[in-house]
Amino acid sequence: MTFHSMWVELLRIGRSSTSGGYRRFAWTGADAECRAWFEDQARARGLTYELDRNGNQWAWLGDPAQGDAVVTGSHLDSVPDGGAFDGPLGVVSSFAAFDELRARRVEFTRPLALVNFGDEEGARFGLACVGSRLAAGELTAEQAHRLTDGDGITLPQAMERAGYDPDAIGPDPERLSRIGAFVELHVEQGRALDLTGDQVGIASAIWPHGRWRFDFRGEANHAGTTRLVDRRDPMLSYAETVLAARREARLAGAVATFGKIAVEPNGVNAIPSLVRGWLDSRAPDQTSLDTVVTGIEKAAREYAQAHGVELDVVRESFTPLIEFEHALRDELARILGKETGLTVPVLGTGAGHDAGILSATVPTAMLFVRNPTGISHSPAEYAAEDDCVAGVTALADVLEGLVRR
Amino acid sequence: MTFHSMWVELLRIGRSSTSGGYRRFAWTGADAECRAWFEDQARARGLTYELDRNGNQWAWLGDPAQGDAVVTGSHLDSVPDGGAFDGPLGVVSSFAAFDELRARRVEFTRPLALVNFGDEEGARFGLACVGSRLAAGELTAEQAHRLTDGDGITLPQAMERAGYDPDAIGPDPERLSRIGAFVELHVEQGRALDLTGDQVGIASAIWPHGRWRFDFRGEANHAGTTRLVDRRDPMLSYAETVLAARREARLAGAVATFGKIAVEPNGVNAIPSLVRGWLDSRAPDQTSLDTVVTGIEKAAREYAQAHGVELDVVRESFTPLIEFEHALRDELARILGKETGLTVPVLGTGAGHDAGILSATVPTAMLFVRNPTGISHSPAEYAAEDDCVAGVTALADVLEGLVRR
Repeated sequence: MTFHSMWVELLRIGRSSTSGGYRRFAWTGADAECRAWFEDQARARGLTYELDRNGNQWAWLGDPAQGDAVVTGSHLDSVPDGGAFDGPLGVVSSFAAFDELRARRVEFTRPLALVNFGDEEGARFGLACVGSRLAAGELTAEQAHRLTDGDGITLPQAMERAGYDPDAIGPDPERLSRIGAFVELHVEQGRALDLTGDQVGIASAIWPHGRWRFDFRGEANHAGTTRLVDRRDPMLSYAETVLAARREARLAGAVATFGKIAVEPNGVNAIPSLVRGWLDSRAPDQTSLDTVVTGIEKAAREYAQAHGVELDVVRESFTPLIEFEHALRDELARILGKETGLTVPVLGTGAGHDAGILSATVPTAMLFVRNPTGISHSPAEYAAEDDCVAGVTALADVLEGLVRR
Repeated sequence: MTFHSMWVELLRIGRSSTSGGYRRFAWTGADAECRAWFEDQARARGLTYELDRNGNQWAWLGDPAQGDAVVTGSHLDSVPDGGAFDGPLGVVSSFAAFDELRARRVEFTRPLALVNFGDEEGARFGLACVGSRLAAGELTAEQAHRLTDGDGITLPQAMERAGYDPDAIGPDPERLSRIGAFVELHVEQGRALDLTGDQVGIASAIWPHGRWRFDFRGEANHAGTTRLVDRRDPMLSYAETVLAARREARLAGAVATFGKIAVEPNGVNAIPSLVRGWLDSRAPDQTSLDTVVTGIEKAAREYAQAHGVELDVVRESFTPLIEFEHALRDELARILGKETGLTVPVLGTGAGHDAGILSATVPTAMLFVRNPTGISHSPAEYAAEDDCVAGVTALADVLEGLVRR
C-alpha cells in the first residue's frame, strides 16, 4: 500500500461534514475505526500486533525482548475540528517508511516497532498525551480514573464502553525499557521550514509552556444607568491585559494567547462581575517565559487596581523545557546530511508531543515536515504531498541508519 | 399593612440562597407567588382585581369605564440574581400610597388603579416589557408566540403551564384608553439623587439606547506554534474595541459596555476563529449616541484591518429617546414642590421601563427613589427605608393631586 492510498483511506474517518475538520476523540467510534485501521495495516505487513495496558497500539518486527528497539509512530486522534495531518502523518509515514525499508532490503539488526499512542490531544478528557503519560508513569491510574469528559462520562466508563479494561492502566516501564530510540515524525505547526525553504527538519526542543487563569472580579451593575466613574468593570482590565500579553510576547520572542474566556453574568445589559481569561504562553527558554508571564501579570495587576477590580492569577499547568537527546539528534542530522549533502534545519517547537513525554526515559527525536501555511489544529491544516513523501524518505533513511547501527 | 410589613413579605419570594439575589422569571413558580401576593393585597383592600389578556394584574378603585383613570405600579419580576428593589419598590409603594390616601380621607373624583406588569425584565425570553408591549401593540401575539427561553420552552408553553391562556394575548387599546395618567415609581439605577442629596426625583426622559453585535472573525490556529506575525487573532481587535468603547463614551458623556461575549472554539491552546462581543450603549440624546457608536465602529474596523480580521457589526435592537409628557411632569413637580417648598430634581435615565412603553399612548411620568450606591441588577441593590418611605409619601402626594384634579 502506498503512502497515498493509506492516506486516502484514513481521510474518511471521523470527518465532520459541516466543518470539514476531524473529530477523532479518545474511545469514540471514530477512534475505534482509526485503531482498527492501524491493526489491519500491522497484520497486512506480517508485523506482530500488540495492544498495551494503556491502549497504545504496537506493530513489531523482530523480538521485543531483544531490547534496544527502534520505534517510530505518532497518534491518530484529533483536536475538535482538527486537521488531517497532526498525528496521522506520523503514523502513515511510519508504515510507508517501513515499506521503503523492505523495498531497500534493509537487514534489521535491532527490533523495530511502529506505534499509535492513544489520546494524545486530550480533546475529550482535557489532558494531553494520556497514553504515553500513563506508560511513562507521569500520570497514575488513580489520576486517570478521575478524568471526566464534557458529558460527565469518566475515562474508565469510556474505556469500558469501547471494550477496554480500565483497571489494567498504569506504568509500563518494562515496555519502555525495550526502546533504544523513539523517532516521531510530525507535520510542523508553524512556518519555520517554509521560511527556510526546507521540506524536513529535526526538533531541538519543546519550549517550556504553561497555562495561567486570570480571574478579574469587579461589580455587576446595570449597563444603562451606572456612570462610568462608578463602575468596577473587569472587562476593561481583561482587555488591557490581552494587549499587554501580545506586547510582552513580542519583546521576548515568545508567544502568548488569550483564547478562552468565561464571563459572569454574561448579559448584554450587565457590567460583568467576573471575567476569567486563560493565558497560554510559551518561549524558547525558561528565562524568556518567566519574563513574559511576570510582565503580563504585573501589567494586569496595575490595570485591575486602576479599575477597582480584584485579580487572582492561578498557574493551572506547566511543562519545563524538554531538550531532545543531543546524541540521537546529531545522529539524525548526520544520517540525513549524508543523503542530501545539506544541513538539515534544527528547530524548537511550542507544541507538546508523546515524544516529549517519552524523552524523560527514552532517547527520543522528532522530524518535522513542512507546513506551508503554518496552520494547525484547524480544518485548513495542510502539507504538500511532495513534502510528505520527502518526510517518508527521511524517516526511512533515519530508521535504516538506526536499525543497522 | 405598613410599607415595612409588605416589603418583608415579598422579600422571601424567589430569593437564591447561594447568591442572595432574586430569580423571579416570567411564568415560573416565583412569579406565581408574586402574582398571588398582588391579588391578596388588592382583595384585602376591597379593590376590584382584574387580570388582563396579557397577564398584567390590575387593582381598581372606582369604575374603570368612567375613564381618565390615574394608574400607578411597576413590576415584580427580576433579572437573574437581581436586587429586591427594581420593580417591587414601585408595586409596594403603590399599595402603601393608596393606604396613605385612605388615611388622608382623600375624595377620589377619578378612578384609580394599581398595576403589576408581567415580564418587565425579559430575563427568561430575552425581550423586556412583554406585558406592556403586548398591551400597547408594540409586540404582536405572533411575535410573542415565537419567544423561547434557554431550555427551548416557548412563551405559549410557559403560559399554559402557569395556567394562563396564550391565545388570549394581544393589543389592549380599550384598557389603555381608560388611563388618564400613569405614574411609575422606581428605585434610581444610578447615583444622581445621591450626588444632589435628594430622596426623590422626577424622570425627564429615557435615553436612546441600543445593542450592537460585533463579530470579529480571524483564523483558528495553534496557540503554541503560530508565530505572532502569522496570526489573525480576533481577541486582539476585540480587546482594543472594548477600550475604544470606554474612551468614546467618556468623551460624549454617554455609557458603553461590552458585557457579553462568545468565543469560538474557546480553547486554552487555540487562537480564536471568532470573538463575538455585544455592545450596549446609551446617551442623553440621539446625536451623542450616534457619535459614540460611529466612533466605536470606526475604531473597531481599523483594529480589525490591522490584525487581518473581518468585522461585521449588526444592530440587534434600538429604542429612540423617550421624553415623558411635559405637562404631567410639570404637574408632578408642582405638586411635590408645593409640599416641600423645594425644587425636585428632574433627571434622565439609561434604563427602559413599562412607563417608557406606555408613554407612546398614555400620559406617563416616573418618580425615582434615591439609590445610595447606584448599584442595580445585583443582589447589592439597595435603598434606605427612610428614602423608600419618602417615595411613598411623594407618590401619595402625586396621586392625591391627580385624583382630585
